[in-house]
Parts: sequence; structure tokens; C-alpha cells
Amino acid sequence: MKAGVLYSGGKDSSIIAVILKSLGYQVELVTVNFGFYPSWKAAAESSSKLGFKHRILKGEPDVLKDAVKTIINDGFPNNGINKVHTYALELIANDYSVVSDGTRRDDKVPKLDLNQIRSFEDRNGVEYINLGGLGHKSINHLSNALFHVKKELTSMENNSDYEIEIRFLISKLEGEELAFKIFPEHLQSRVIGWRENE
Amino acid sequence: MKAGVLYSGGKDSSIIAVILKSLGYQVELVTVNFGFYPSWKAAAESSSKLGFKHRILKGEPDVLKDAVKTIINDGFPNNGINKVHTYALELIANDYSVVSDGTRRDDKVPKLDLNQIRSFEDRNGVEYINLGGLGHKSINHLSNALFHVKKELTSMENNSDYEIEIRFLISKLEGEELAFKIFPEHLQSRVIGWRENE
Repeated sequence: MKAGVLYSGGKDSSIIAVILKSLGYQVELVTVNFGFYPSWKAAAESSSKLGFKHRILKGEPDVLKDAVKTIINDGFPNNGINKVHTYALELIANDYSVVSDGTRRDDKVPKLDLNQIRSFEDRNGVEYINLGGLGHKSINHLSNALFHVKKELTSMENNSDYEIEIRFLISKLEGEELAFKIFPEHLQSRVIGWRENE
Repeated sequence: MKAGVLYSGGKDSSIIAVILKSLGYQVELVTVNFGFYPSWKAAAESSSKLGFKHRILKGEPDVLKDAVKTIINDGFPNNGINKVHTYALELIANDYSVVSDGTRRDDKVPKLDLNQIRSFEDRNGVEYINLGGLGHKSINHLSNALFHVKKELTSMENNSDYEIEIRFLISKLEGEELAFKIFPEHLQSRVIGWRENE
């Protein structure tokens, strides 16, 4: 069965990809891009290093614009990020019968609650699988055991999270100061290969 | 890292065992028995067919007696089963740094909520991993793909869930009628080997 995994190049989405592959799914890693900035490149590189097929799905630019409006109004990213995440899952559900992402047990945003998951699965006729059975400690242990990981400050070039395109758009509309206030630079872990290849 | 998986011989606990093994954990399957009835035999057989090491951990008989009291008072099994389940996890946590069970996303009982998981992990210095990222549809697909499964009515001999010893004790204390009213016979799926060996 084909599984489409929403992929950023981070530990979480890399681990769920590994789990699904080991269970026998034909895994394809998918990064959704809205056409404002080519922020899929880091994810494509991580995917290639791990040997997975990687696809870029084009999202509707208005969806990102709407999310950016929400975020600017709110002054914080959670609701806007959840909107983009839900949209990305719906987009992947057009092409795959198993839709997956790296949401962990202790994640707060983006996250679907149980009712949202049931509705998403039923409306789209898909199965949704994430990392809801694992906490951050287990993810960190697994990531250290499985992957070669690079810790670095986020930049426009090394990160494929939604926040890159969102920050880009906020910068354009409202200036860099607000963009970096809402999405500060932070230390990220990016998967850049298998550990055994180090 | 060693992982102790609370094991019944059913689909769910078999799948989490397979996932953990594929991620590199040294998996041991553990069935807790309270000394009233040797209900671990079905689990031991399933484990052996899948090639996992299986252990029986002896639970404190009073814990099962207390749970049975709760269940008889309540007239339904949920609270008593949750007590036994929590106790079994604590018991396994003495021997393993990773403690696991087959609880799925859509399970209601037995289940730890997020706060109970945090408390369990912190008190015992362990990581807890379950199937919280998967729903019943995915579990059924995976089980069909991976395992040779036998569907049959539950009996005293083919089931290693807590309910066997609990039903045994309720029968002794209050008679078979109440025992089978609270825990009716039902169709169960027991893993009896790998699918490729069929």
C-alpha cells in the first residue's frame, strides 16, 4: 500500500517514514510548497540521503495567504499553522490511501485531535498514521540511533517547515521585524543521512 | 536498548513488537500473570511463533483481587481493567527502560491519558511507547499483511488478556453467570505466525 508522508527533513517525519517502510508500505515523502519560496530543498536533500522518493505538491497560494492573515491577526502562529497543516494533509489524501506525518504524542501544534482525525479519514477515505505513540525522549533516542543529524540555526535555506514560506510572506507584507518576532530563529535538527554512513 | 512489551498474543501487541524490533530495540514480550489461572499460554505460543523472547512476570495476587472487587461493585470492567493494566506497566518498568503495549489511537480501555503517561515515565525513569499513532483500520490492514491470524471465540485456553484471570476469579466468588455477563465470550483475533509462513 502506498503511504504519503508529509515531510520536512526533520527527525519526526523521518522516523515515521522509516517505521512505515519497515512495515511494508511503499513510502513517498511529500513536501507541500505554495510557490512563494522554494523551501522544499532541505527536505528533498534529506529524503534523497535516506533513499526515499520525494515529491513536491503545489499548494493553493491563497491558502497560505489566508493562514498568514490569521497569524498576523492572532500575533502568534498556532492557528495559522494548523490551517496550513490540515490543508497539506487534505492535498496528500488526493494521491495516497495512507496519509502520514511526524506528529508526536507530546506535540501541540500542528496537531489533529481525535475527532478531526476521524473526520479527515472518513471524508477522504484514507488512513492517517502519525507518531502519536511516541514521546520526545523516544524520538530523540531513535533519531540519534538511526540518523546523522545536523544541529544548526534555522535559515531560509536549511528548513522546509511551513514557517519558511509564512515568514517570507509576513516579511513582504509587514516587514522582517514582525516575521522574526512571530517565528524566531531557533536551533533545529535536520536529518542529513543514515548514522551507519557517518 | 531493551524494550519490554506487554503481550497478549493479539494483533495490537504483536504489531508494536514488530515496529520496535524494526527500529532496533531488543524486544522482549512480557505477559503478567497473577497466579490464579495460567492464562499466559496463548501469548507464549504466539510469541514463540513470531520468534520473540517471552517472559511471564508474576503479579501480586491482591492486585487482581482488588480489581475484581472494583469490577463486581461497578458492574462493568473498565476501571478494574485499567487498574490491572497500570499495575502491569509498573511491574515491567522495573526491568526495562522502554515499556510498551499495543494501545491504539482509538482504544478506550485500557488506556493511559497524557498526564498518566507523563507521570508513569517520570516516576519510573522509562520511556513509554504504544500504538497511539494508528487507528483500527490501519492495525487490521497491517495484521492481515504481516500475520497469520486465527479468528475464534475466546476461551480459557486461547486468550491471555487480563479478563481470563479476572473472569476466573469472579466465577469463583460470584458464579459463572456474573462472570460471563461482565466478560461475554467474543470473537477474537489471535496471532499464530508470520503470514509468509502460511
